[in-house]
Amino acid sequence: MKATVYMEEMDAFTYREKLRNDAVVFVPVGALEQHGSHMAMCVDAALTKAMAGATAEALSSFTEGAAQGVVAAPINYGYRSQQRSGGGFHLSGTTSLRGTTLIALSRDIVFSIIRQGARKIVLMNGHYENFQFIFEGAQLALEDARKDGIDDAKIQLLSYWDFVDDQTIAELYPEGFTGWDLEHAGVMETSLMLLFYPDLVDMSKIDDPLYDGLPATLPNYDVLPIIADYTPPSGCLSSPAASSREKGVILRDVAVRNMVGAIKREFA
Amino acid sequence: MKATVYMEEMDAFTYREKLRNDAVVFVPVGALEQHGSHMAMCVDAALTKAMAGATAEALSSFTEGAAQGVVAAPINYGYRSQQRSGGGFHLSGTTSLRGTTLIALSRDIVFSIIRQGARKIVLMNGHYENFQFIFEGAQLALEDARKDGIDDAKIQLLSYWDFVDDQTIAELYPEGFTGWDLEHAGVMETSLMLLFYPDLVDMSKIDDPLYDGLPATLPNYDVLPIIADYTPPSGCLSSPAASSREKGVILRDVAVRNMVGAIKREFA
Amino acid sequence: MKATVYMEEMDAFTYREKLRNDAVVFVPVGALEQHGSHMAMCVDAALTKAMAGATAEALSSFTEGAAQGVVAAPINYGYRSQQRSGGGFHLSGTTSLRGTTLIALSRDIVFSIIRQGARKIVLMNGHYENFQFIFEGAQLALEDARKDGIDDAKIQLLSYWDFVDDQTIAELYPEGFTGWDLEHAGVMETSLMLLFYPDLVDMSKIDDPLYDGLPATLPNYDVLPIIADYTPPSGCLSSPAASSREKGVILRDVAVRNMVGAIKREFA
Amino acid sequence: MKATVYMEEMDAFTYREKLRNDAVVFVPVGALEQHGSHMAMCVDAALTKAMAGATAEALSSFTEGAAQGVVAAPINYGYRSQQRSGGGFHLSGTTSLRGTTLIALSRDIVFSIIRQGARKIVLMNGHYENFQFIFEGAQLALEDARKDGIDDAKIQLLSYWDFVDDQTIAELYPEGFTGWDLEHAGVMETSLMLLFYPDLVDMSKIDDPLYDGLPATLPNYDVLPIIADYTPPSGCLSSPAASSREKGVILRDVAVRNMVGAIKREFA
Amino acid sequence: MKATVYMEEMDAFTYREKLRNDAVVFVPVGALEQHGSHMAMCVDAALTKAMAGATAEALSSFTEGAAQGVVAAPINYGYRSQQRSGGGFHLSGTTSLRGTTLIALSRDIVFSIIRQGARKIVLMNGHYENFQFIFEGAQLALEDARKDGIDDAKIQLLSYWDFVDDQTIAELYPEGFTGWDLEHAGVMETSLMLLFYPDLVDMSKIDDPLYDGLPATLPNYDVLPIIADYTPPSGCLSSPAASSREKGVILRDVAVRNMVGAIKREFA
Amino acid sequence: MKATVYMEEMDAFTYREKLRNDAVVFVPVGALEQHGSHMAMCVDAALTKAMAGATAEALSSFTEGAAQGVVAAPINYGYRSQQRSGGGFHLSGTTSLRGTTLIALSRDIVFSIIRQGARKIVLMNGHYENFQFIFEGAQLALEDARKDGIDDAKIQLLSYWDFVDDQTIAELYPEGFTGWDLEHAGVMETSLMLLFYPDLVDMSKIDDPLYDGLPATLPNYDVLPIIADYTPPSGCLSSPAASSREKGVILRDVAVRNMVGAIKREFA
Repeated sequence: MKATVYMEEMDAFTYREKLRNDAVVFVPVGALEQHGSHMAMCVDAALTKAMAGATAEALSSFTEGAAQGVVAAPINYGYRSQQRSGGGFHLSGTTSLRGTTLIALSRDIVFSIIRQGARKIVLMNGHYENFQFIFEGAQLALEDARKDGIDDAKIQLLSYWDFVDDQTIAELYPEGFTGWDLEHAGVMETSLMLLFYPDLVDMSKIDDPLYDGLPATLPNYDVLPIIADYTPPSGCLSSPAASSREKGVILRDVAVRNMVGAIKREFA
Repeated sequence: MKATVYMEEMDAFTYREKLRNDAVVFVPVGALEQHGSHMAMCVDAALTKAMAGATAEALSSFTEGAAQGVVAAPINYGYRSQQRSGGGFHLSGTTSLRGTTLIALSRDIVFSIIRQGARKIVLMNGHYENFQFIFEGAQLALEDARKDGIDDAKIQLLSYWDFVDDQTIAELYPEGFTGWDLEHAGVMETSLMLLFYPDLVDMSKIDDPLYDGLPATLPNYDVLPIIADYTPPSGCLSSPAASSREKGVILRDVAVRNMVGAIKREFA
Repeated sequence: MKATVYMEEMDAFTYREKLRNDAVVFVPVGALEQHGSHMAMCVDAALTKAMAGATAEALSSFTEGAAQGVVAAPINYGYRSQQRSGGGFHLSGTTSLRGTTLIALSRDIVFSIIRQGARKIVLMNGHYENFQFIFEGAQLALEDARKDGIDDAKIQLLSYWDFVDDQTIAELYPEGFTGWDLEHAGVMETSLMLLFYPDLVDMSKIDDPLYDGLPATLPNYDVLPIIADYTPPSGCLSSPAASSREKGVILRDVAVRNMVGAIKREFA
Repeated sequence: MKATVYMEEMDAFTYREKLRNDAVVFVPVGALEQHGSHMAMCVDAALTKAMAGATAEALSSFTEGAAQGVVAAPINYGYRSQQRSGGGFHLSGTTSLRGTTLIALSRDIVFSIIRQGARKIVLMNGHYENFQFIFEGAQLALEDARKDGIDDAKIQLLSYWDFVDDQTIAELYPEGFTGWDLEHAGVMETSLMLLFYPDLVDMSKIDDPLYDGLPATLPNYDVLPIIADYTPPSGCLSSPAASSREKGVILRDVAVRNMVGAIKREFA
Repeated sequence: MKATVYMEEMDAFTYREKLRNDAVVFVPVGALEQHGSHMAMCVDAALTKAMAGATAEALSSFTEGAAQGVVAAPINYGYRSQQRSGGGFHLSGTTSLRGTTLIALSRDIVFSIIRQGARKIVLMNGHYENFQFIFEGAQLALEDARKDGIDDAKIQLLSYWDFVDDQTIAELYPEGFTGWDLEHAGVMETSLMLLFYPDLVDMSKIDDPLYDGLPATLPNYDVLPIIADYTPPSGCLSSPAASSREKGVILRDVAVRNMVGAIKREFA
Repeated sequence: MKATVYMEEMDAFTYREKLRNDAVVFVPVGALEQHGSHMAMCVDAALTKAMAGATAEALSSFTEGAAQGVVAAPINYGYRSQQRSGGGFHLSGTTSLRGTTLIALSRDIVFSIIRQGARKIVLMNGHYENFQFIFEGAQLALEDARKDGIDDAKIQLLSYWDFVDDQTIAELYPEGFTGWDLEHAGVMETSLMLLFYPDLVDMSKIDDPLYDGLPATLPNYDVLPIIADYTPPSGCLSSPAASSREKGVILRDVAVRNMVGAIKREFA
């Protein structure tokens, strides 16, 4: 079998060798949800897996010797999409976990990986709404580990987009940046999909009137039950029209470089 | 974007159109666990996704018009591996969910898919230990749906290997068949991996003394904490030596044909 | 008070003395569910209690000195009956626990017994559908114990019918054996009831047309909501007609002898 | 099979006939815990089963026609014994459920019985500490039923000792009554055991110095962790010395008569 | 900031100093529920906070040096009001937590306070129905602490009214005392409200026919769903007519003095 | 009793009248946590209660007739403080709920209020870390209500600081605004405390070297276990030095006006 950073594609013996060398294990946390008519629904899980893979590879090449990256299987399903960051969980295609389920799921996976021997774990988030729940899951996993006599595990929790720096944002969004919450199916996600999974994007769909009137203007509060009219008809919150593979390259390179820096800061 | 049965690779508008045509939605339920030194750890999730994909495609081609198959993102993590069917959850690489977590996870996904409009759901299992927990999850999802006023959803739960018929077993296991529980990383899984993901199998590893003494002789009970010595050193429970891509084709074809029959029986 | 293996009939001081002598504590796990018109509904709990009692007594007589058996109060209620092994949880009389409840119940009882001083525990199952849930409960109890500083508790989990050997099966089922899952209210359970609780069996009911057409032919999958027509009208899955007290004696003797062997293997 | 009020000893068809006649279904809720050296540990479950049986029989005889009683299998395990009413859950033999487990257990059983067709349910408690948890379980079961479209189920919750009237108390406790909480293993429970299960009582044990100094003097608060010294060495909270089978008859007769009255008041 | 026993009004540095001096931390547990037309709905939370405050102050003055009292923020919401002690949870205004929620809430708060350094904790209850649930929460918090390596935390659980002695009861209720359960919105609560929060009582409302027929005559069992007619129209279970600020002073003084004694007994 | 918007200070009959007039019920959600040495620990709960009170009063005065505001008792405890928005849950004084507990707590309270008759609910958040958990609780409460046959309840979720508009921010933070997450114990909270609870602020403490080096520079990720050095010694994340009662008035007035607008938009 070929060399790989992906745990799914690795046999157990190879994996154990990496853990013995104190590998950093990434857990990508995504979602399965609508991303307009121009992209497939795997975006949050697929991009986070790809970004974690690129970071794990970069980490290995930047480092001499031991510190290698391993990317666990992604969590394919995420917390209920909220209207202000993902269009809302009422939309068909958007498949949602309850909060308690995502807490339990991230807790079990992180604890199991710690019990296997990992001590350096990166929970990489790719679905805005997940963060608080996986933070709780991570804390509970550490408590589980401590009860098992393991006191030296450490977890870093991050969202990959937070590592795109201001200068890059200024370059990529010359007409102004509306915030990561509104970037649902917008330029960042679409550009990265054009880079990593071009077959799962169809830029021709963007000319549709469905895409008029973006970015969405959303209230500064949430309402339940969801008021469907607050979400644009495409389900996108900002326009993907200015997306390109080149922007995808820039976004990946900046975010990966900065994530590698942050990971080395914590785990070196 | 190309035509696909995989929901992950589909945009939400295409998916909604399929639901309007009363598509059968498959949810593959796998695991991330050791499968010896000759195979990658994704076997249970990857094979179930592939078998669900093949079944969904076959279902569509056998049927005129409406009844199409859609395959949701796989559940990548499963219940604790047990020694008598998977080598045990003490082995590094084998990543485990608690029972309550798998119940909650399958419940939420099935309920969310029902709420989206699906009424015909197939929970396809690929990890022996999962079955009771996803059965419970499915029942709770139906109760959720009923409370939401939805009374016409139907769920079929199956494990794909149960659709390999006795005649095929007799052909493929000329020296006797030891049961599906011992087929962990044995001829069936290895042959199907050689068919679907040949890059993730390395048959040369099988000559290792690690693989001596198979099939495993296991007690007719479980012990906790696990007694590591009961599991063979490779982690496989039966020998994969007689595996081949050709057997993979036979297994796939038989199981898919029989699953299509069962699905049509319930959902036609 | 008379000497007894049953914890329910023992005073606490006698029980504590047995624990000090390192007794094996059995926890019978049953169910309250329909077993046709010819048997009472307590079968799964009552037989498991009786088999655990017989095993505890045999264990004590086989062993010199210390190793005694104590049988805790049975868990009277079990997991939802499934159509392929118990006729289905839709049938009136069949009283069902949710999966999470049975996990919690077995966890609490096992942990409480460990905290009392027991280190050798046998969870004896008598309702096919229970097994995965009590396995999870047992593992969680061990984790509870470990957090309490107890590292030397050991749990054996078994279903008593798995200790009826192939030769006995061949003798008792001369026309072929259809598997333990279909033995719901069939020859094994009925023969053991005729042995242990003859007042709770009425063999004259078996001539009823309700009992025609057994064994049941069930699909190799589950469907939810349950399709009532798949279950035979009696609720039995195989015919009890060939049952007899004598077969009960044979079944008990073989299973008890083999269970004693397995218990001594693990706890000697 | 003989006529019986006990569901455990009834076949499903007979049970269904009783439900069609609108039977009152009793669920006895007990415990498995120490009751001194003079009684077996099953007291709370065994007495409650017996009292429910006597009440069910009396109910049937008092009533013409339809209103019959059926007694479901007892809940054999109860909530943690508290020092002020049961001696404390630190004592070996006393086997405890967490509060959430008892809530779930009583909820599932009651809901399952309602779903089977019962509309008149009596939860009879026999372990002081259980009450609030089974009250919660009963309410959740009613909510489950309502969500299932069942609006006419009714549950009566009671502790059998609350139906011993003041006059009887004055007669049976001529030297003063210290309250039902201190009656743990005292005159009431011992007298009823002498009536229903004389083989499980040994009055000769009471002369032991273990039994000196009763009734216990306990603080008007609880402390955790339990302070073992607050519990008398026998584990009894008041003296059973004045117990007799005759008092058992009186207690049973009074309590049963008053419970029948209360049940008829609510369910007639 | 002024000196205070209330943690809510204290800055964190002052609080930490008190913990270093081994302060007793009180957690008042109340409810938000109807208390007739003559009192505000905060009674259970507000009185328990006030009684805890008075006890904490008295504790400090009685003790030289170290042993100080700190009163954490009250738990404002309690378990479902029951008809026999609070009028029932069907009444508008009465806001209810599920049992599992109150267990979790009291567990988390107690554990968090222990983790902060407190080792002496008093859970003071002011809503009859809460007790069993906070007892369970306290035990779980101690288990959490033990798993965290903390073995020396101690929790005292009490209801403040249990510290009003018999002589005071005889004085304050010259016409007979009907028990603390019926004291819902009666003389004790009303007198204490007149003492601590006179603005939240309106004695003129008591002349209303709503208040006729008190004390309530309630059955010696519970019924679910609640039978509204069993509750008096005011929602009070006994008459507050004889209440006065002076009785409030007596009640406070007696209960505080006795609670200080009990706390010193356990924590000195 | 005086007129009030606070449910805690209202009798049940007055409250019911307001519900009949379709009152908007506010539920303030706070926390009990360190806020430096210059402020009491109740800030999040106390300010949210005060802001909800001011909003409820303004709502009533702006509206003719029916639409009145009622403020339920605050949730006094919140989710674990995170280092990037509250200094971290490792700090003594900061008292934390698990995520599942806050979900359950907000769910029960909201559902209970809906069952009482409220149809217009505002969940007002005052502790940054709470939001996702109370969002989940609100959704579950709506599902509970729907199962109870109530389809017309509506919930608005907001954090009061989100209603301070950009112009006010520019005025109040002339040297630049670092974001609401860093406003923990900074100018906004301190100014509002100076307005509402001046006794609970001590501005003289701010000259302490503890307060040097603010605002804190925190990483763009979280680490668990918490790295204590990342939090400034005071526990504040930005400097409160520029706080004043006047700024408190401005902040309150702007936020209340904008919240009233938002509430009228949704509930008019």
